[in-house]
Amino acid sequence: MQIGFIGLGQMGTGIAANLLKAGHEVTVFNRTRAKSDALASQGAKVAVTVGEACKGVAVFTMLADDRAVEGVAFEDGGIIESLPSHAIHISMSTISTALSKRLAEAHAEAGQRYIAAPVFGRPDAAQAAKLFVVAAGEPDAIEIVQPLFDAIGQRTFVISTQAEAANIVKLSGNFLIAAVIESLGEAMALVGKAGIDKHQYLEILTSTLFGAPVYKTYGNLIAEAKFSPAGFAAPLGLKDVRLALAAGEELRVPLPLASLLRDRFLTLLANGGDELDWSAVGGLAARDAGSS
Amino acid sequence: MQIGFIGLGQMGTGIAANLLKAGHEVTVFNRTRAKSDALASQGAKVAVTVGEACKGVAVFTMLADDRAVEGVAFEDGGIIESLPSHAIHISMSTISTALSKRLAEAHAEAGQRYIAAPVFGRPDAAQAAKLFVVAAGEPDAIEIVQPLFDAIGQRTFVISTQAEAANIVKLSGNFLIAAVIESLGEAMALVGKAGIDKHQYLEILTSTLFGAPVYKTYGNLIAEAKFSPAGFAAPLGLKDVRLALAAGEELRVPLPLASLLRDRFLTLLANGGDELDWSAVGGLAARDAGSS
Amino acid sequence: MQIGFIGLGQMGTGIAANLLKAGHEVTVFNRTRAKSDALASQGAKVAVTVGEACKGVAVFTMLADDRAVEGVAFEDGGIIESLPSHAIHISMSTISTALSKRLAEAHAEAGQRYIAAPVFGRPDAAQAAKLFVVAAGEPDAIEIVQPLFDAIGQRTFVISTQAEAANIVKLSGNFLIAAVIESLGEAMALVGKAGIDKHQYLEILTSTLFGAPVYKTYGNLIAEAKFSPAGFAAPLGLKDVRLALAAGEELRVPLPLASLLRDRFLTLLANGGDELDWSAVGGLAARDAGSS
Amino acid sequence: MQIGFIGLGQMGTGIAANLLKAGHEVTVFNRTRAKSDALASQGAKVAVTVGEACKGVAVFTMLADDRAVEGVAFEDGGIIESLPSHAIHISMSTISTALSKRLAEAHAEAGQRYIAAPVFGRPDAAQAAKLFVVAAGEPDAIEIVQPLFDAIGQRTFVISTQAEAANIVKLSGNFLIAAVIESLGEAMALVGKAGIDKHQYLEILTSTLFGAPVYKTYGNLIAEAKFSPAGFAAPLGLKDVRLALAAGEELRVPLPLASLLRDRFLTLLANGGDELDWSAVGGLAARDAGSS
Repeated sequence: MQIGFIGLGQMGTGIAANLLKAGHEVTVFNRTRAKSDALASQGAKVAVTVGEACKGVAVFTMLADDRAVEGVAFEDGGIIESLPSHAIHISMSTISTALSKRLAEAHAEAGQRYIAAPVFGRPDAAQAAKLFVVAAGEPDAIEIVQPLFDAIGQRTFVISTQAEAANIVKLSGNFLIAAVIESLGEAMALVGKAGIDKHQYLEILTSTLFGAPVYKTYGNLIAEAKFSPAGFAAPLGLKDVRLALAAGEELRVPLPLASLLRDRFLTLLANGGDELDWSAVGGLAARDAGSS
Repeated sequence: MQIGFIGLGQMGTGIAANLLKAGHEVTVFNRTRAKSDALASQGAKVAVTVGEACKGVAVFTMLADDRAVEGVAFEDGGIIESLPSHAIHISMSTISTALSKRLAEAHAEAGQRYIAAPVFGRPDAAQAAKLFVVAAGEPDAIEIVQPLFDAIGQRTFVISTQAEAANIVKLSGNFLIAAVIESLGEAMALVGKAGIDKHQYLEILTSTLFGAPVYKTYGNLIAEAKFSPAGFAAPLGLKDVRLALAAGEELRVPLPLASLLRDRFLTLLANGGDELDWSAVGGLAARDAGSS
Repeated sequence: MQIGFIGLGQMGTGIAANLLKAGHEVTVFNRTRAKSDALASQGAKVAVTVGEACKGVAVFTMLADDRAVEGVAFEDGGIIESLPSHAIHISMSTISTALSKRLAEAHAEAGQRYIAAPVFGRPDAAQAAKLFVVAAGEPDAIEIVQPLFDAIGQRTFVISTQAEAANIVKLSGNFLIAAVIESLGEAMALVGKAGIDKHQYLEILTSTLFGAPVYKTYGNLIAEAKFSPAGFAAPLGLKDVRLALAAGEELRVPLPLASLLRDRFLTLLANGGDELDWSAVGGLAARDAGSS
Repeated sequence: MQIGFIGLGQMGTGIAANLLKAGHEVTVFNRTRAKSDALASQGAKVAVTVGEACKGVAVFTMLADDRAVEGVAFEDGGIIESLPSHAIHISMSTISTALSKRLAEAHAEAGQRYIAAPVFGRPDAAQAAKLFVVAAGEPDAIEIVQPLFDAIGQRTFVISTQAEAANIVKLSGNFLIAAVIESLGEAMALVGKAGIDKHQYLEILTSTLFGAPVYKTYGNLIAEAKFSPAGFAAPLGLKDVRLALAAGEELRVPLPLASLLRDRFLTLLANGGDELDWSAVGGLAARDAGSS
């Protein structure tokens, strides 16, 4: 399939490489050129403008936030202006439901199609084509691009004809991870101050009821207070919790635990946490307990 | 080994049966006699008083709450009065750290020994000898009763010489489960109001990062709003969160998520939730969102 | 002074009338014409376009929210386009700090001046020229319009050269009122369920430490659960708490009580509270307690 | 009237002195004798045992907490044992509703009478006979001791025949003060980080809607971060919030703002706040914001 790919961060690079491996004809675009060149050696064409990446059946975007996606979509010469009729914009970024809805409308008006398809998985999963894809949008559009999802992930969940539903699933998933971080942070602050070994405690948890990867990964980071280097930086964590709250506000769903998390992230960032991993939120309970 | 067992609820009955199966000589006591008789057919001796269950190497207590344990331990003719020198009280109930400490002191004064050994696992695990035992107390006392733990559980974690440490681990574990219930409740209120199918949502979660039993079990209950009959009743959930908060207060560890949970349990109980499963806390976010 | 006045709601109408009484030459503009006509009989000129209200030394805006202010300010033929050099835009609306900052910059670029001057006081105070004005911006601009403030209020507080500081003061003031509503709501839910008469309780409070108008006013509304008609509608309360949180997020100041209030407002709105007074938030604690 | 007075702290000393001035025959008791002697010079008889202070029509207790009151009431030779039939125990201490209920029952069984009569006002008000008395209990008992209340306060509010109702009013009043401290702490953290002068900000608040003593007093302490010496020490603040929460738990009234306050007090105490005034809770928002 002839496709475009915009946004070559850690995630995007891995995904685009797998699309190439699967035999698709991929034209890549990135604001900073160097990352495109790396993929050129794997067979990608390099676009100099956003428009050049919008010539095929579909174009992916995998960008940092609303502002970045808004930029490439709505600017002069952007995706909306450049994409052919009936072509499909596959938005993988973790963006707000509001922007996702706006994109769906704008593409519909322009005679194009829009799918929201955020993914679960970290850069290593992207590289290994082991992502989970959560897709929402017009069923026939999703059907067309299903081979692309197959090339990058281990499973695709199609959950709604409303594109923004996929974004809510992604945002609420990140909220659930942050909730695990907070709850572990509190539990460890308590047992730690009681003199219990945190690693043994974590072993008890993960051997019994909490045997999920999320407890192992974040439990270890919190037990060791090892919050640097950042796998997923704290400001991104704040962004996602904020977007979950915004989705809740639009739908009028109060989310008190998400509110607590938002305050935690702000506390973290106000105290020098910009460069830390978002799991550093799990260290704040110990700080409040005077233990760190 | 010659031992006593006090408290034949769902958990206690399963545990005592496994002790019998392993060949131990077990004298059981329960306030309501009928439950003792059931075990008699499996070889248990039936005690008519607490004191009669305190004649051996060790006596187990598996009771509902602080008040019940306080009763059998400190009353006239209770455990403290009846237990031989050097014999061991194994307290499996989910009680406060304050009472556990007080029991440790009282037994020490009386020349006896005390182990806190709460368990993780529900009645079916008790019956199947698949419990996880978290034990704390004097190491040599624990060594003596290790064969008893082997008879009832799949693994014993020895975590401290301070008995109350085991109670903190148990209480914080229940807090973590309640945190999962709350976070799932909020996430499902959000995706539900967005029109997403809750079961499909749960499948996405448990297929990806949240593959632990706790998410599957409670996720299903919340998705179906099936909070009755109670596996673990809401008032017990409130009790455990309250005890976790009390442990935090004593150690000066603020636990804001536990505070949120406490308010949730109170709301539930104030609105007719006495007979519901504690997972009904996971339905309150939907109620606040006007969805139920 | 020759001035314009845009936005003739309950507040704006009272303020504009007082400016006329003080002898100023006022050109009024309102999207719905009828309200302008009412002031015409008191001597106002009626503008048919925003631009016609921007011919004098200063133009006031007193509008519902960011969107409304953004509209009249930035649209074609709006204030930025129409206001003469050096003329002053006095923004009295309760808007976000972000918009206030943006307006300050846009006016500066256009060679105009911008003052943020939100007020404390309800419609009756506006009518009686008893408002409190909190002003921020260039000192010499404020000096020029001081006679206008004198005509509408009982006192002006000049607090900063940064316009958005005035908006923060206003937003945090409304946050403090909402905090009083919540705290009274919880206290009354408690004493009410204990069988204590709420009015007598309120009398005790206001006779002793809590003798401020805010306790009397809101205490009575909560004691009587009289939340309709709305003096200040719940959606506006949510808006102001949200803007306070947004200001906190920009400055990285976590505000947990404001987060709690935000969730309360959402709960209220999700359960049919759109038309209620914002004091209805004070009824939610009783609802959670199963008392209403 | 012949009366006893137990507990000569700052509050008790002032109250007892006013009872003497009004011509009553007062026998005082205090664990540390020196304070009794000071009152002897004003005409008090000094009791060497609790029982000696229980010979008259009524005996006051004004003690630090539940434990102290429980001690003098229930110990051998304590109030319950010593008080004549029909004599009245007037409990002014800020104690739990549970203990107040228990005292009411114990006195009734012993053929004595019990009134809960906590007061609002600080030591200077006690000295000036300007306290507010909130009384609950049997109406005829209250009538008998009304002249005593008149001698020590400016007004008595009789609110219920159930003694513990007076304790709930007192506890909820202290909760409301703590809520003011928290809300001002958050608001000042916000405006402070925005560069606004906190004293000017406070002047705006107290000149407009927040003209109550509680805002002036605590606003100044927070603006100056002057939390020492303690007028009312932080551990007492925690105690009162805990007792308000306990009352709420018994009545099943969730109090989320009180929960937030409890966590704040714990954070304060965990970080060296034992000797600080409870208004130091108002400094925590600034700490979380990285401003202090």
